[in-house]
Amino acid sequence: MDSYQVGVLGATGAVGQKFIRLLENHPWFTIKALGASKRSAGKKYKQAVHWIEKTELPSASANLKVKACAPEEFKGVDFVFSGLDSSVAGDIEKNFAEAGIPVISNAKNYRMHDQVPLLVPEVNPDHAELIKKQSFDPEGNGWIVTNPNCVSVPLSMSLKPLHDAFGIDSLIVTSMQSVSGAGYPGVSSMDIVANVVPYIGGEEPKVQTEATKVLGTLSDDTIAFNDFKIQATAVRVPTIEGHLLSASVKLKNAPSSIEEAEEAFTNWKNPIANLELLSSPKNPVRLYKEDRYPQPRLHADREGGMQTAVGRLREGTVMDLGYVTMAHNTIRGAAGGAILNAELLTAKGFIS
Amino acid sequence: MDSYQVGVLGATGAVGQKFIRLLENHPWFTIKALGASKRSAGKKYKQAVHWIEKTELPSASANLKVKACAPEEFKGVDFVFSGLDSSVAGDIEKNFAEAGIPVISNAKNYRMHDQVPLLVPEVNPDHAELIKKQSFDPEGNGWIVTNPNCVSVPLSMSLKPLHDAFGIDSLIVTSMQSVSGAGYPGVSSMDIVANVVPYIGGEEPKVQTEATKVLGTLSDDTIAFNDFKIQATAVRVPTIEGHLLSASVKLKNAPSSIEEAEEAFTNWKNPIANLELLSSPKNPVRLYKEDRYPQPRLHADREGGMQTAVGRLREGTVMDLGYVTMAHNTIRGAAGGAILNAELLTAKGFIS
Amino acid sequence: MDSYQVGVLGATGAVGQKFIRLLENHPWFTIKALGASKRSAGKKYKQAVHWIEKTELPSASANLKVKACAPEEFKGVDFVFSGLDSSVAGDIEKNFAEAGIPVISNAKNYRMHDQVPLLVPEVNPDHAELIKKQSFDPEGNGWIVTNPNCVSVPLSMSLKPLHDAFGIDSLIVTSMQSVSGAGYPGVSSMDIVANVVPYIGGEEPKVQTEATKVLGTLSDDTIAFNDFKIQATAVRVPTIEGHLLSASVKLKNAPSSIEEAEEAFTNWKNPIANLELLSSPKNPVRLYKEDRYPQPRLHADREGGMQTAVGRLREGTVMDLGYVTMAHNTIRGAAGGAILNAELLTAKGFIS
Amino acid sequence: MDSYQVGVLGATGAVGQKFIRLLENHPWFTIKALGASKRSAGKKYKQAVHWIEKTELPSASANLKVKACAPEEFKGVDFVFSGLDSSVAGDIEKNFAEAGIPVISNAKNYRMHDQVPLLVPEVNPDHAELIKKQSFDPEGNGWIVTNPNCVSVPLSMSLKPLHDAFGIDSLIVTSMQSVSGAGYPGVSSMDIVANVVPYIGGEEPKVQTEATKVLGTLSDDTIAFNDFKIQATAVRVPTIEGHLLSASVKLKNAPSSIEEAEEAFTNWKNPIANLELLSSPKNPVRLYKEDRYPQPRLHADREGGMQTAVGRLREGTVMDLGYVTMAHNTIRGAAGGAILNAELLTAKGFIS
Repeated sequence: MDSYQVGVLGATGAVGQKFIRLLENHPWFTIKALGASKRSAGKKYKQAVHWIEKTELPSASANLKVKACAPEEFKGVDFVFSGLDSSVAGDIEKNFAEAGIPVISNAKNYRMHDQVPLLVPEVNPDHAELIKKQSFDPEGNGWIVTNPNCVSVPLSMSLKPLHDAFGIDSLIVTSMQSVSGAGYPGVSSMDIVANVVPYIGGEEPKVQTEATKVLGTLSDDTIAFNDFKIQATAVRVPTIEGHLLSASVKLKNAPSSIEEAEEAFTNWKNPIANLELLSSPKNPVRLYKEDRYPQPRLHADREGGMQTAVGRLREGTVMDLGYVTMAHNTIRGAAGGAILNAELLTAKGFIS
Repeated sequence: MDSYQVGVLGATGAVGQKFIRLLENHPWFTIKALGASKRSAGKKYKQAVHWIEKTELPSASANLKVKACAPEEFKGVDFVFSGLDSSVAGDIEKNFAEAGIPVISNAKNYRMHDQVPLLVPEVNPDHAELIKKQSFDPEGNGWIVTNPNCVSVPLSMSLKPLHDAFGIDSLIVTSMQSVSGAGYPGVSSMDIVANVVPYIGGEEPKVQTEATKVLGTLSDDTIAFNDFKIQATAVRVPTIEGHLLSASVKLKNAPSSIEEAEEAFTNWKNPIANLELLSSPKNPVRLYKEDRYPQPRLHADREGGMQTAVGRLREGTVMDLGYVTMAHNTIRGAAGGAILNAELLTAKGFIS
Repeated sequence: MDSYQVGVLGATGAVGQKFIRLLENHPWFTIKALGASKRSAGKKYKQAVHWIEKTELPSASANLKVKACAPEEFKGVDFVFSGLDSSVAGDIEKNFAEAGIPVISNAKNYRMHDQVPLLVPEVNPDHAELIKKQSFDPEGNGWIVTNPNCVSVPLSMSLKPLHDAFGIDSLIVTSMQSVSGAGYPGVSSMDIVANVVPYIGGEEPKVQTEATKVLGTLSDDTIAFNDFKIQATAVRVPTIEGHLLSASVKLKNAPSSIEEAEEAFTNWKNPIANLELLSSPKNPVRLYKEDRYPQPRLHADREGGMQTAVGRLREGTVMDLGYVTMAHNTIRGAAGGAILNAELLTAKGFIS
Repeated sequence: MDSYQVGVLGATGAVGQKFIRLLENHPWFTIKALGASKRSAGKKYKQAVHWIEKTELPSASANLKVKACAPEEFKGVDFVFSGLDSSVAGDIEKNFAEAGIPVISNAKNYRMHDQVPLLVPEVNPDHAELIKKQSFDPEGNGWIVTNPNCVSVPLSMSLKPLHDAFGIDSLIVTSMQSVSGAGYPGVSSMDIVANVVPYIGGEEPKVQTEATKVLGTLSDDTIAFNDFKIQATAVRVPTIEGHLLSASVKLKNAPSSIEEAEEAFTNWKNPIANLELLSSPKNPVRLYKEDRYPQPRLHADREGGMQTAVGRLREGTVMDLGYVTMAHNTIRGAAGGAILNAELLTAKGFIS
């Protein structure tokens, strides 16, 4: 099988770099074009980027000439990944979709758009069908698909087994977020070394809404959001990668025992397991029984950074259950999640 | 006025060191005796202790000979502070009380004892009266008073204005706790550098109960616990001092606006302000309006480490309010809190 | 005595904030004017600044209107402190000096100027005389005095006792520098959490030269630099305040024992002790005998952040001695050092 | 080819865990027996160990029953790896060697023994011949081979190209060492979060001697130590893995340019490249040209944690050269180094 030719928008940013690292030897997707701001356009990628990954800058990308983020510069690609900053993603992604180029985006701009799927393949793969109703490109070639923000991904994934088993009434969540979530240079070391900052601008509204769309129902060409309520507090902690969430959940039909709640996780079936997507973990939602697990530094990289960890599942005194959940914020919660979306969409025939 | 002669039990531990530092120039209390384990007894304090405070080991204590923690070794002291580990505090504190020596303790052992006040002077100063009912020492000279654990202190203090104004129905709290809370050597650096550990053994049951006693009502010689419910998650973060709590609260009578909730804090009156206790902050519960405040590293030392900070007060989507609160865990939440208890009890005439 | 009226240039930056904090209750110096960039000029200071100090923004400064950094805006001040960034300090400081306003600067621009003292009061107080030869202001009212960079300060102070006793031939130093040395936002948390970065742009040339001027000799209206050589490596470590230096020193006349080297420190006399300057520590260079000391987090604040700590003094295998030294980089090594310079200069009558 | 059957002594410690992780799928070596203290003996490994690795506890080892560290318990193994603590390694390793079981040890006890090679395969592979002269086991089956400590490994590897090209006269080194170097629980978080501790007990004597044995010459059945002198300062910094060294070196024949020094590294040939040992990196000593590299958190894992990084190579002002070097302390500097030693010794036929 020939691989797809792909572009990466926002290639010099932290998420863009993660795309380039994760796609280095991807058998289905080959990077053909890199887009960044005007300041970078025209330079070789290795000269434009301040590379911050642990692994070597892949040589194939190193020597690509960076392009401006305009559709006419990306002719010949089958689709683009977008790691664009939200300050510019709105117009650029629309331009690409209108020009007939599919956009698989990590930016927040179109997540709540009523024609755009907010896709987590193991949770709501059927939402991909919404693509067919998009009007960006009347010919239907160009469209936008998004993944949720880095907190909403582990939240959606950890809620899905509970939702299927018991129904979700409401939840309270405190997310302890790593510094990589703010990009590079992002959080000043003066703010966060040996400290916790109890605020992340713009984060809580996303956490309070996105999971209700992900766990919503597609019918009549629209997504009916799920009716549970989320109350969120987002804080920054001095970790590098991996957002850890402390969640308390009220269920519609509470389990009769904690064992029953555990079984909701251990018996849950990954609905896309049969597709054998390359980036989908064998065990998408892993339940840890050890009290001290999961931990961002130890477990964020498990299964290529694509696994969502759940731990400390226990009965609550106010709400039915308490648990913690954690996922790699720049892989599962950003670039890796977008790549998995692309894998799903190619497997389902949305990309030709 | 002559100062009181005091002893410190558990003097070589982390909390014991904090007692010694905070009492260095205390005008009311003079350290006369230091007690520690048999391994240390007989040595000069400066040889027995692995001093970890930023300030110099006070010279007056440095040359005291460490004693065993037995009442007969502490004759002549007016009372003792206890920074003992809970594994030994039960018997030792009882021995002192029975021998007629008041014990002002930071240990958890007698916090839930029905004759022992769990005292936070700005919150429940009247609970001190319970001392009169204690039966440890039939002659009434010896007794035990405790302060809550390092999370329950800011929790109680931040709940008090809300309780007085609106009544508390229930709350969900995630406490992000600094490494000093585990003593020395305590948390391994291998566990916590650039990491979060989602479990602190034995912590959550304390957080879920202590504040309901602190905010309880003394009548008929017993304390009726408050009827609100607390659901707690305790996690360790790589901060040095200051526990930060993310709280969501359901009230009995919700305020009609966030301004009304703010006023509950700003209008709240410290009931012991008139006593002018040395360690009591001018503003015991400070409300920050800046989103990014309070932060442990910046604000834990405010007002000598005795102030409780509240911030991010906002309307909730599931419960009525959300807020964060923070206090210095080894000062306000431990040694400093116990010293303030002693100041209250001397001012009220419990110690002669 | 009336206090001096002072201005602070670069008032919104990290060093500027430290000036404002340290001068809050200074009995000799009263802040009358604050200068910053055009972006801030015209705003109240509390609106222009992103305050990062642990203590409260002093109310006297909070409501001052920020001025542009032009001499005509600072009429009536007796002198100015400069915490300006080196990118703009060159012209601005010259403008002030030429306009007759003394500048006591922390910027690097004029440190090597042959008419400008590079002053550390306990080390080379006589260099202040060089002021009289400055030609910035023909009338002699305006001049510039600088303090060394944050590494060169503890280096100079720790070398002085050795220099006086044995003479310095050469030294090798590795400086482990805290993140506050880079200002705010300064070092990205992505670069430094749980990491060491082995390079600080522009730092090593300063470390390799400044101490030789500080320890130089003033004669015939010029400073003859000391003839020892310094080889420096500057690395960034995840500490907040306090630069720790590992030094190996070859002496001109080696001591016959380590005790003799220790005595060089313990017998050394502070030449300005008689002036009783407010910011000068009782013990400017403290020798720690405990192997594990000094440590930035524990000891940088000793004596108001103005003490230089020395430890691990020991015989070397290649050079005569090895030792570590540490000082608070933004107090002793920046704002506090400049304030001490101002105290010396007022005591000596240079400022009227 | 059948694989060798191996044992691991000290299996529950930090180094022992690293052995188990690194050997999980090793094609030449199969773990057959695990030894630990009496407290652990008799338990299944998964019950005896507090697993701290990021990866899953390998299932093959998880269910092995832990044995006491006595040779009679390890019958049938071809050799043992020792990750024993030095407090017990002396006797135990001797017992194994005397019983005819080769010991490939990471402990310090026999490193300076005149019959024991201190082996770094890319530096002194010929020293392995010294095994033939060992007298532990008169029949010659049992012997001991050691690897240097975690600082001496990158030091030896980075000095080797310079030694071959220019000869080493003397050097000054400051090692900034990660917390994993102290094992688990090791360094208290109270000591090291946002701090630097300028002392590591017992470390400097090792750093000052081991590299002179590694770079020594084997002749007449003994190793003549190299004659260069090392002056070392060992400090602890809050990094997890990777020790970074700042080195200043005086050479016997200084290069005429920095390019010539660079070529010493880039032209250096790995003497064991032809053996194609599994754990030997393609590029054992990598020279980084970027000023900000190498960094522990970014680069310690390169080439499986077996590569030594060199950077900031530059002319010195006191000694000829300055550079920094870094290697993964628990892989290249401990378990991985020992495994590479075992690979060399099997390839050379020392193990049958």
